[in-house]
Amino acid sequence: MKQFMDKDFLLETETAKKLYHEHAAKMPIIDYHCHINPQEIAENRKFENITEVWLGGDHYKWRMIRSNGIPEEKITGKETSAREKFQMFAESLPRAIGNPLYHWTHLELQRFFGVTDTLNADSAEKIWKICNEKLATDDFTVQGLIKQANVKLICTTDDPADDLRWHKKIKEDGKCAAKVLPAMRPDAAMRINKPEWKDYIKKLSDVAGVKITNFGGLKEALGKRIQFFHDMGCRASDHALENVFYRAASDSKIDDIMDKAFSGGVLTVEEIEEYKSALLLYLSKEYAERGWGMQIHYSAMRDNNSRRFKEQGPDTGFDSIGSYACGEGIVALLDAMESRGHLPKTILYSLNPSDNALIATIIGSFQGPEVPGKIQQGSAWWFNDTKTGMEAQLTNIANLSVLGNIVGMLTDSRSFLSYTRHEYYRRILCNWLGKLVENGEYPADMAFLGKIVEDISFNNAKRYFGFEI
Amino acid sequence: MKQFMDKDFLLETETAKKLYHEHAAKMPIIDYHCHINPQEIAENRKFENITEVWLGGDHYKWRMIRSNGIPEEKITGKETSAREKFQMFAESLPRAIGNPLYHWTHLELQRFFGVTDTLNADSAEKIWKICNEKLATDDFTVQGLIKQANVKLICTTDDPADDLRWHKKIKEDGKCAAKVLPAMRPDAAMRINKPEWKDYIKKLSDVAGVKITNFGGLKEALGKRIQFFHDMGCRASDHALENVFYRAASDSKIDDIMDKAFSGGVLTVEEIEEYKSALLLYLSKEYAERGWGMQIHYSAMRDNNSRRFKEQGPDTGFDSIGSYACGEGIVALLDAMESRGHLPKTILYSLNPSDNALIATIIGSFQGPEVPGKIQQGSAWWFNDTKTGMEAQLTNIANLSVLGNIVGMLTDSRSFLSYTRHEYYRRILCNWLGKLVENGEYPADMAFLGKIVEDISFNNAKRYFGFEI
Amino acid sequence: MKQFMDKDFLLETETAKKLYHEHAAKMPIIDYHCHINPQEIAENRKFENITEVWLGGDHYKWRMIRSNGIPEEKITGKETSAREKFQMFAESLPRAIGNPLYHWTHLELQRFFGVTDTLNADSAEKIWKICNEKLATDDFTVQGLIKQANVKLICTTDDPADDLRWHKKIKEDGKCAAKVLPAMRPDAAMRINKPEWKDYIKKLSDVAGVKITNFGGLKEALGKRIQFFHDMGCRASDHALENVFYRAASDSKIDDIMDKAFSGGVLTVEEIEEYKSALLLYLSKEYAERGWGMQIHYSAMRDNNSRRFKEQGPDTGFDSIGSYACGEGIVALLDAMESRGHLPKTILYSLNPSDNALIATIIGSFQGPEVPGKIQQGSAWWFNDTKTGMEAQLTNIANLSVLGNIVGMLTDSRSFLSYTRHEYYRRILCNWLGKLVENGEYPADMAFLGKIVEDISFNNAKRYFGFEI
Repeated sequence: MKQFMDKDFLLETETAKKLYHEHAAKMPIIDYHCHINPQEIAENRKFENITEVWLGGDHYKWRMIRSNGIPEEKITGKETSAREKFQMFAESLPRAIGNPLYHWTHLELQRFFGVTDTLNADSAEKIWKICNEKLATDDFTVQGLIKQANVKLICTTDDPADDLRWHKKIKEDGKCAAKVLPAMRPDAAMRINKPEWKDYIKKLSDVAGVKITNFGGLKEALGKRIQFFHDMGCRASDHALENVFYRAASDSKIDDIMDKAFSGGVLTVEEIEEYKSALLLYLSKEYAERGWGMQIHYSAMRDNNSRRFKEQGPDTGFDSIGSYACGEGIVALLDAMESRGHLPKTILYSLNPSDNALIATIIGSFQGPEVPGKIQQGSAWWFNDTKTGMEAQLTNIANLSVLGNIVGMLTDSRSFLSYTRHEYYRRILCNWLGKLVENGEYPADMAFLGKIVEDISFNNAKRYFGFEI
Repeated sequence: MKQFMDKDFLLETETAKKLYHEHAAKMPIIDYHCHINPQEIAENRKFENITEVWLGGDHYKWRMIRSNGIPEEKITGKETSAREKFQMFAESLPRAIGNPLYHWTHLELQRFFGVTDTLNADSAEKIWKICNEKLATDDFTVQGLIKQANVKLICTTDDPADDLRWHKKIKEDGKCAAKVLPAMRPDAAMRINKPEWKDYIKKLSDVAGVKITNFGGLKEALGKRIQFFHDMGCRASDHALENVFYRAASDSKIDDIMDKAFSGGVLTVEEIEEYKSALLLYLSKEYAERGWGMQIHYSAMRDNNSRRFKEQGPDTGFDSIGSYACGEGIVALLDAMESRGHLPKTILYSLNPSDNALIATIIGSFQGPEVPGKIQQGSAWWFNDTKTGMEAQLTNIANLSVLGNIVGMLTDSRSFLSYTRHEYYRRILCNWLGKLVENGEYPADMAFLGKIVEDISFNNAKRYFGFEI
Repeated sequence: MKQFMDKDFLLETETAKKLYHEHAAKMPIIDYHCHINPQEIAENRKFENITEVWLGGDHYKWRMIRSNGIPEEKITGKETSAREKFQMFAESLPRAIGNPLYHWTHLELQRFFGVTDTLNADSAEKIWKICNEKLATDDFTVQGLIKQANVKLICTTDDPADDLRWHKKIKEDGKCAAKVLPAMRPDAAMRINKPEWKDYIKKLSDVAGVKITNFGGLKEALGKRIQFFHDMGCRASDHALENVFYRAASDSKIDDIMDKAFSGGVLTVEEIEEYKSALLLYLSKEYAERGWGMQIHYSAMRDNNSRRFKEQGPDTGFDSIGSYACGEGIVALLDAMESRGHLPKTILYSLNPSDNALIATIIGSFQGPEVPGKIQQGSAWWFNDTKTGMEAQLTNIANLSVLGNIVGMLTDSRSFLSYTRHEYYRRILCNWLGKLVENGEYPADMAFLGKIVEDISFNNAKRYFGFEI
């Protein structure tokens, strides 16, 4: 029996151990997609206690505690103390056997805090004290954590209307061990069906200094912001789509649709899809011209529980996987870009693991010579971000594409302790490769295998996005 | 090489063996969902021969024999002797290598009949004789089998119009080792699109003593039956839905739809969905108020073969998995209940294993403090009720929810020999946990692990449904 | 650690080794579905070099090289030398770790060419020379390769209008070690929505000597061709469907639809589906009467990249899996045939692995006494033709049907070196069975297990299609 989470955690063969310890472990981190707040980096936030850093905004943990039957008040309530919230988490965690949270939690305790005890109702008090003591030191500020984790580059997620003031400040200060770049997420501009859209367009108009009354104006404004982001080092965009489609329409039709939206009309599904298609098509051209990587995240159902949404707002743990059959839509969208000669480097993420093989075969229809693996299936996303989910993603890509070219892991996280997910991923990757080799399915060429591990851990992402580090 | 189905069947590690033999094996059975006939319990039926008990109504076995190219007459025909039908089964079984029927059959032979030979064309005669001899004894009556299997509670599946006379008799007799409770399945009331609906409503009306001319009457009648069932110990309901949806409509609209149905009109899909949605919403309130667990079984296609359906009727082995993409429908339905404050404890079962991750993430959006794991993904259902299907379900729940809280196995069976499926499940569960522990993915805290095994085997179901045993 | 691809490649247990070496290895090959050109067999083509035989038409390999970022010109371009194209392949392959192409390539190098080196940028020159020397010898003509591979029967894929001249010639020559039979693929007749349809109908009309002006004429013409194919030894048909449906219509309605198509009208989706349904229904009757096996391949999206399609045409590596939810359509189609008493032996292949369980349960609804496993799920098709894809297919069939009756592997290939895929499949099959046995899940009855292996490798396909060999 292996000891719980020892140095060879998840490494089941000698080949896996060698690959991990000699190659993966030493590579720095590029976290090319996450949701951390650049302000917290700029201000080098210090945390009061472990609850703040762990349970402040982590809806993965909230869901798990809720699923254990703990009342909402004890999880996110204002009347519950940080210590008690921590206790609720500590009590719930052991029953979540097999959940990646169990591993992430203990990886974070081991790597950042040097705690090898397991967290449960009894150990909570001891661990609470140790963590809080450490959090009070300078090594545990936001920048301290980034440095501890050997992170070399971070892409945040930013609205086109954002002034990127915190990115500027971080750069000017020059103290953060990692380069912190913006990544553009133009979802607000896309969501013409939302009541907020009109106000958003106004805001975008002001920031860009472009009057937006029609599609031409919108494109001009976004084009300016894209160039501004590019000048600020941005090399990636990101789109959250419920499902993926492509519905062609002329620019003048898009003008009409925008007119209707400006004047408060209710758009049809067709109109919404036409607008979104046209906008995405335009954006793809701008991305392609600048060599950006376009990320598309789809098949999430969000804010499922309207009662809780009213209480807590979005991204609070009430989302799920969707069941959209949009293979034809993805193909139509990529083909529209490709046939116009401006399909950018693209990474597709579906939240539904049933889409794995679908995606890995679609990407094979649109590759190009710009970079190996120009069109990629993204790392196992969100609910798939588990040991078996990652193994399924690796197996799927290996079966259907060229595994050696993938850009590897990202945290997608709101927490500065999540960088250990890269370690988790790398261990799983090395174990996956080790099994293959030890079962005689690939030659035991350790130098080449080591290169593949280092590439997937770091080099491929650097090359793919063209990051200068 | 392990011996075929020895005492450590499916237990691949020392941890698994310890968990099974010291914790799982001793726990009694709660069979909270099955299709056995309470009359047979009440009358303590004795079986003539092994064909009667094994092949009398088991469409799993019929399908398997049919898939081996055996003519229908030799499987379900009236001209074929019980002995010959048994031979057809014995001859077909060995070719069904890897099929759970192979394991279930031999588990039942070992546990109930003490037979360790394997069943095939040659051994059939010997096994036929041994089984029939035993079936002639009092230990092998229905109640004898229930006692042998250490079953403490059984929920049958009953129509709201059922008078539950056999449940009363079983209770009055007080001889059955297991508590036998009704569970309500109001499918006939839901199926307004079926020709039988009008007659059914008449019957329900008579039984409830409520004139049903509109939705109000229907609700009153069902409400009375729910209370009657509750008084008879019912704590669970069950719904068989093809796909899941929610389409809101006013009560007066439902009245109109019922009028149309009463007068023989053909309902639109919209009207059918509105009626079913409204009725399910009403029922959920009644369930929630009484603390019942609501089970929803969906994504089955039934009676696929119309020629065979005409000959043999429903539930004869001509059903399959469906390919409905109803994630949005499930969310809309649960949200309608949740936002009105009466989402009951709910267990979702999809027949399509591609829905596994979908369901496990949807349930996480609707948890509540009533009980740990208030909203659950059900055990691997019907066609998924295999070793790999169960492992997939456990892995999925572990990844995405809190495994320690699940209510565990049910037989879903029409046979009194199927209780060994609980053993099958428990072995798979212990093996799954054992691998995790021995691979260093969870601490080897045997007391806590043993507790989890005992909970999933028995305690969780007891707590979840509030059974008094 | 096992050596890379040694004699026990993929055989992880003693039982697996025994089953493979003593039973699977000796069985000849029936390749009942492939896309090789019968002319090349008849003319006993000799290949100039390894690029011609490997990279001449293999879109699996093209995709892989493209995914490695190699420009199209270096893959399929006319300006690039055969040697350079080979280099591009050799350089890309090692990064495709875990891809079945890696195994297929080295199996072909080992078995046909006796090369045990691994292919990469450095070894390419040496391997290029060895292979080309061998290809210049008589053992490496098309018929030489067929003989080397111990192939006893090949079914090509042929249009009903084909005159089968090459099949006649091969038969008359009597030199090919394998029987070469046609298999009918009437896709061109089905595709009434395509611009080529009218010309095709004209051609079919001419070949059959039947004037086709309505549905009756079309049926008569196809009926004649079916009989001709049958007389030429054809025992299988094949249909490539995007998705599967059944929409009933009268024959006179089909006449109207054909009229509309003949006169250049644009058909509605309903009309297209009605026509295709009626035609498939007719064909199924003809197949059933002659005991043919009907193959249905569905859920492929083809020619996704319109820019590349214009350059390169179909079947050049720009296809993908589709996401069609057509469970109801499959059931309706099979039921239409079954209820009319002419459901033929049928093999269903979905390109989407999420359909695995769906298919395996649908087939169970339509079995019959003509042959064990009358309705089958086909071998893991195209993108699923991987180690894990095959294991998933075997597990799925074992769980839900009778594994011992399946017709086993086919190459589906355009290359005469692909017969090693049968070896690949048999190793995976034996390994799968071996694990089951060694884990105590099936008795270690080696004679019976050996029989199952031999049946799945060869005997079942022979019996199923009624091939005389």
